[in-house]
Amino acid sequence: MAGTDSTKADTDWSDPAQGPGVGPAIILVQPQLGENIGMCARAMWNCGLTDLRLVRPRDGWPNRHALAAASGADDVIGGARLFDSTADAIADLHYLVATTARPRDMTKRLVTPAAAAAELRRHGNRQRVTTGVLFGRESRGLHNDDVALADVVLHVPLNPAFSSLNIAQAVLLIAYAWLQTADDAPGAATEIAHPADTRPADKAEMMGLFEHLESELDDCGFLRVPEKRPTMVRNIRNIFGRADLTEQEVRTLRGIISGLSTKRRR
Amino acid sequence: MAGTDSTKADTDWSDPAQGPGVGPAIILVQPQLGENIGMCARAMWNCGLTDLRLVRPRDGWPNRHALAAASGADDVIGGARLFDSTADAIADLHYLVATTARPRDMTKRLVTPAAAAAELRRHGNRQRVTTGVLFGRESRGLHNDDVALADVVLHVPLNPAFSSLNIAQAVLLIAYAWLQTADDAPGAATEIAHPADTRPADKAEMMGLFEHLESELDDCGFLRVPEKRPTMVRNIRNIFGRADLTEQEVRTLRGIISGLSTKRRR
Repeated sequence: MAGTDSTKADTDWSDPAQGPGVGPAIILVQPQLGENIGMCARAMWNCGLTDLRLVRPRDGWPNRHALAAASGADDVIGGARLFDSTADAIADLHYLVATTARPRDMTKRLVTPAAAAAELRRHGNRQRVTTGVLFGRESRGLHNDDVALADVVLHVPLNPAFSSLNIAQAVLLIAYAWLQTADDAPGAATEIAHPADTRPADKAEMMGLFEHLESELDDCGFLRVPEKRPTMVRNIRNIFGRADLTEQEVRTLRGIISGLSTKRRR
Repeated sequence: MAGTDSTKADTDWSDPAQGPGVGPAIILVQPQLGENIGMCARAMWNCGLTDLRLVRPRDGWPNRHALAAASGADDVIGGARLFDSTADAIADLHYLVATTARPRDMTKRLVTPAAAAAELRRHGNRQRVTTGVLFGRESRGLHNDDVALADVVLHVPLNPAFSSLNIAQAVLLIAYAWLQTADDAPGAATEIAHPADTRPADKAEMMGLFEHLESELDDCGFLRVPEKRPTMVRNIRNIFGRADLTEQEVRTLRGIISGLSTKRRR
């Protein structure tokens, strides 16, 4: 899917000096499906996280379904550590985020993924300070006693009527939010202005423009070499595609094409 | 997993007036596994997106695996539309984002999920302007001809050596980024300052504090009612848990507990 930045293709995040910094441990409490553990490992390594901790996984460990679902994040799976209790799994950590869906009869500060990520980064940047994020079992979430161990509770603001995330989706959201807090993380959007009294051309209008143009280019012989045609067509479409054309501009361009063609045919 | 905001539990995003605004269509080109289509639908509805379009799904449509994996996002699955070509699927759209992993021999503007989300929101806020995000098949991504149709290419900055996302993970990242651009989306972190010469207490130190305190509270009879004990312990732990204690403060508190207990025993 989406991804590779060719300008950084030489970077090896297995070397901590080249990676995005010291990230949180991911602690899965009583995970059920090996496949979910594997997908969590994949999401972790996508974002440069490696410290996976498992508290009493239902189907034992190691688990071949986990390895298959990790899709190559083998080092995360291979390095995963087993614990008998949540307290043991988090004993060395200094700052802990709990993820939970259900309202609890306790007062805890709620943070969004972006806010949790900023706090994890701030704590993680300090020497000898380690952090973690706690995830409950797929069907039931975290027990209140586990939530009580955490400093803050992660709240992902989603559709109020449909807020349940797959565990690997939840791991990805927090891991990606954390990755975005790295010093060299890419910034915000570029902007291209449009006049207020027009609108961007829709794809049907753009296609009409392309087909009009290509028809005329075929007719005049510009696209006459068959083996070069697909690439040339694509490059031409790209030129206009990148231009963020308005509907008015498309009409103007088609007028130009018609005008030039009429002249050629004379 | 993480989620429900009880303060908005009455909100029904099926009513556009209550939802997070007009979002992009999600277009899956030749998706292979029904399960992936279902997980995409789930991620969409998590974030308030409903317009799912499928271009020649490999295993036909409808697909029972898709419905099962949607985990209740049945309206998104039920409302999905089928198309014979990518061009047909995007014909009514004005602004299109393509997601692709591989470098292409074409000049396209690259945007991060946050940047793409901002552009989708900006375009989507205009009357009669519709947007979409294009995803390729699981194993091969988008064809160059499909990428050429898009205005920008989405680039998710991930681990350079491990940047491949499951298609539903990619849909979630862009959908969640879009949701975060809503006017009433929750803001950033709160901050608590620590002196530079100390560090936050770790979980083992906090546990030591709790056990010390609870032992003394048992001893003095404060926790004497067995059926109330678990809740009382949790509430007490929470009080200290919320305080963002430093290691020094934990030692101070334990000194206080010892001091108070010693006086009582006299």
